[in-house]
Amino acid sequence: MKAYEIPGHLEVKGNHLTIGGVDAVSLAETYGTPLYVTNEDRLRDNYRRFSAAFPGVSIFFAAKSNNNLVVQRIFAQEGAGADAFSDGEIYLARMAGIPAEKILFTGNSKTDAELQYAIDSGVMVSVDSRDELLALSKLAKKAKKEVKIAFRVNPDVSADAHPKLATGLKVSKFGIPTKDIVSIYKEAKKLPGVNPVGIHCHIGSQILETAPYTEATNKMMDLVEQISGFIDLEWVDLGGGFGIPYQKGTKVPTPKDWAKAILPTFKARCKKIGISPELHLEPGRYMVADSTVLLMRVNTVKKAYKNFVGTDAGFNTLIRPAMYDSYHEAVIANKAGSPAKGEYTVVGPICESGDILATDRQLPVVEKDDIVALLDAGAYGFCMSSQYVGRPRCAEVLVHNGKADLIRKRETFDDLLQNQIMPGRLL
Amino acid sequence: MKAYEIPGHLEVKGNHLTIGGVDAVSLAETYGTPLYVTNEDRLRDNYRRFSAAFPGVSIFFAAKSNNNLVVQRIFAQEGAGADAFSDGEIYLARMAGIPAEKILFTGNSKTDAELQYAIDSGVMVSVDSRDELLALSKLAKKAKKEVKIAFRVNPDVSADAHPKLATGLKVSKFGIPTKDIVSIYKEAKKLPGVNPVGIHCHIGSQILETAPYTEATNKMMDLVEQISGFIDLEWVDLGGGFGIPYQKGTKVPTPKDWAKAILPTFKARCKKIGISPELHLEPGRYMVADSTVLLMRVNTVKKAYKNFVGTDAGFNTLIRPAMYDSYHEAVIANKAGSPAKGEYTVVGPICESGDILATDRQLPVVEKDDIVALLDAGAYGFCMSSQYVGRPRCAEVLVHNGKADLIRKRETFDDLLQNQIMPGRLL
Repeated sequence: MKAYEIPGHLEVKGNHLTIGGVDAVSLAETYGTPLYVTNEDRLRDNYRRFSAAFPGVSIFFAAKSNNNLVVQRIFAQEGAGADAFSDGEIYLARMAGIPAEKILFTGNSKTDAELQYAIDSGVMVSVDSRDELLALSKLAKKAKKEVKIAFRVNPDVSADAHPKLATGLKVSKFGIPTKDIVSIYKEAKKLPGVNPVGIHCHIGSQILETAPYTEATNKMMDLVEQISGFIDLEWVDLGGGFGIPYQKGTKVPTPKDWAKAILPTFKARCKKIGISPELHLEPGRYMVADSTVLLMRVNTVKKAYKNFVGTDAGFNTLIRPAMYDSYHEAVIANKAGSPAKGEYTVVGPICESGDILATDRQLPVVEKDDIVALLDAGAYGFCMSSQYVGRPRCAEVLVHNGKADLIRKRETFDDLLQNQIMPGRLL
Repeated sequence: MKAYEIPGHLEVKGNHLTIGGVDAVSLAETYGTPLYVTNEDRLRDNYRRFSAAFPGVSIFFAAKSNNNLVVQRIFAQEGAGADAFSDGEIYLARMAGIPAEKILFTGNSKTDAELQYAIDSGVMVSVDSRDELLALSKLAKKAKKEVKIAFRVNPDVSADAHPKLATGLKVSKFGIPTKDIVSIYKEAKKLPGVNPVGIHCHIGSQILETAPYTEATNKMMDLVEQISGFIDLEWVDLGGGFGIPYQKGTKVPTPKDWAKAILPTFKARCKKIGISPELHLEPGRYMVADSTVLLMRVNTVKKAYKNFVGTDAGFNTLIRPAMYDSYHEAVIANKAGSPAKGEYTVVGPICESGDILATDRQLPVVEKDDIVALLDAGAYGFCMSSQYVGRPRCAEVLVHNGKADLIRKRETFDDLLQNQIMPGRLL
């Protein structure tokens, strides 16, 4: 029996895990650990597979899932737009080569400076509240610009996501309640500096059923029907949230399944209303999660109440297991074809009991200096990492055609001191 | 009725919140938001109050709670040592002026490079596993050094802390089970390069009862009794975990209460054994939490299912409420003396429903551009912050004698690009 099935684009060669044709163990040796390793080809495959299932649909990559410059450059080459959640993400998307007219600035709480930055950049804005509408109109008028906007709708759709990630419930902080939508589009139409051309929702993250998408499509099209009499609607954005199978054996809809849940309903409703807006989608996790493994080195194996494998990456490097109880498959990269011999709990080097990366896993005999690979670490990985407990952030590598490029240098102690200033009187 | 009682060193003057005699609203104007503001005098007061309750006890400030250089310099001036959880924290503590012989390197999973760094730095090491003991001995022998060590004991003491923070349970990843302690001290005594002179435990964080400390003291002294026949014990380190009243009205032991739970037991047991080791304690949160407020600006007030106050700081800036459901008092800094007029939920600008800072709080009427102060933000605040969703990390200010010093510059978009490398073939 093998300890685990190696999925997709990963392979086992000579008992070592490989990614994009590159030996994971030699990557750990060359670049050090912890190390995020991203397979360029898998990014492109994911994009193409998804977009093929949605012909004619515009894809706005959700940069929040992985706003790395190189990752976004690759999606830019594939033709993606971006869903940016801050002025910083607009900046990163633009630096990566994504055109301004293909960027939607989303977000529930935008500063005036961010709105000004969006106006200057020429991106579209998804407006989340009346306060924001008024602020944006005022700033755009002053700048003598007109900004294409949508409103973020709170559709009150229940998707079976982690409570921290279910963004489409009526209790959530996001969006404008459906009952207020018609009146806010009417108000926006009269205001200077803003041109309401879209409508936007987002029902959650890591969703594993298709039904909520059909429900959201219908609820959104109910609103579209109400506003299309007085708004020239250019597009409808149904957001993202498409889940991936973190745990082997999890049944997950394919892009074709998602498309079947959305497209026929969308098209039928448009036809009935007599309009033909574009459809926008915002996949993030689906595009990046399985492209990347996180490599870490074993510092210690401790037989206590459990067998604890202490590694050099904790929730400073990958926060998902500690924050959301997320599951990531763990593979011993230098023993990737060996049979399971015991149960291990993989933990990190952070001063909290919750700093656990993988609980009670069947693994080959684990020893000091083994390399552990956590799979599907490409979404909400490096971008959520911190310098907690004084640990410089780790490096990132891109693999392609059997070769590796360093795409983010490892931080050093200098990065811990950066920006700190000691007042003279304390010297 | 006032909306809230302003605690301790904070005051309300002219309806504005002040800290260290400085107007919080003018700080927000001058330095921008989000902004951490730390009161130097409060840091010193906390240190002196705690150490006065524990005469003769050595205090090792738990740097993980706030490893800011200036904060550690202030404690260094007060005479503190440091509990460092990584090589980076050893570096920061040394840069802040804490002597190497007053630094204990703790941690459950240390790399060989970190152990080498500790050897080179001349700090003491709390050893967490047999693997680590062997690695340290080998490296120290090679370097012709002798390192003073302790073992981290897992005392299996149940303190009523958040499950992610209870570090002294037998199921936790930390420490060596008590049944193995005698044999590992015996083994260490024979090994070159290491000199076992201490014993160490840490039962958790934000503990609000004294009984677990008495229990831990007794359990540790049981072990001390067993090893003192063959180990010349220089010190016993009972860790930290002393809680603070985040929510007004919470009953919290005083330093004198903690002392009463620990000192008589410790002294009586030492006397009985016939030894006189030093006692070490590692307060972190107690020293820094209430010294600091986090200021943030209101971007939008939205009446949806709840009244949502959208600010410019989210769990990228302060992760405790999102990660641990932690409570922080919220004050409208520019209306700090005004009566409560409604119920508000304060949220951040992050793309997750869990990005909530304060739920259902009675506050004065909140409007766009108001300044919200979250209190007690000095522990596990900036040090856990990230650049999630492309937001540069915020600034920090130190106040003292009615004046403010910038002690950490606000990051810019440049800091988002830093260390990123675009491979030539993708240009």
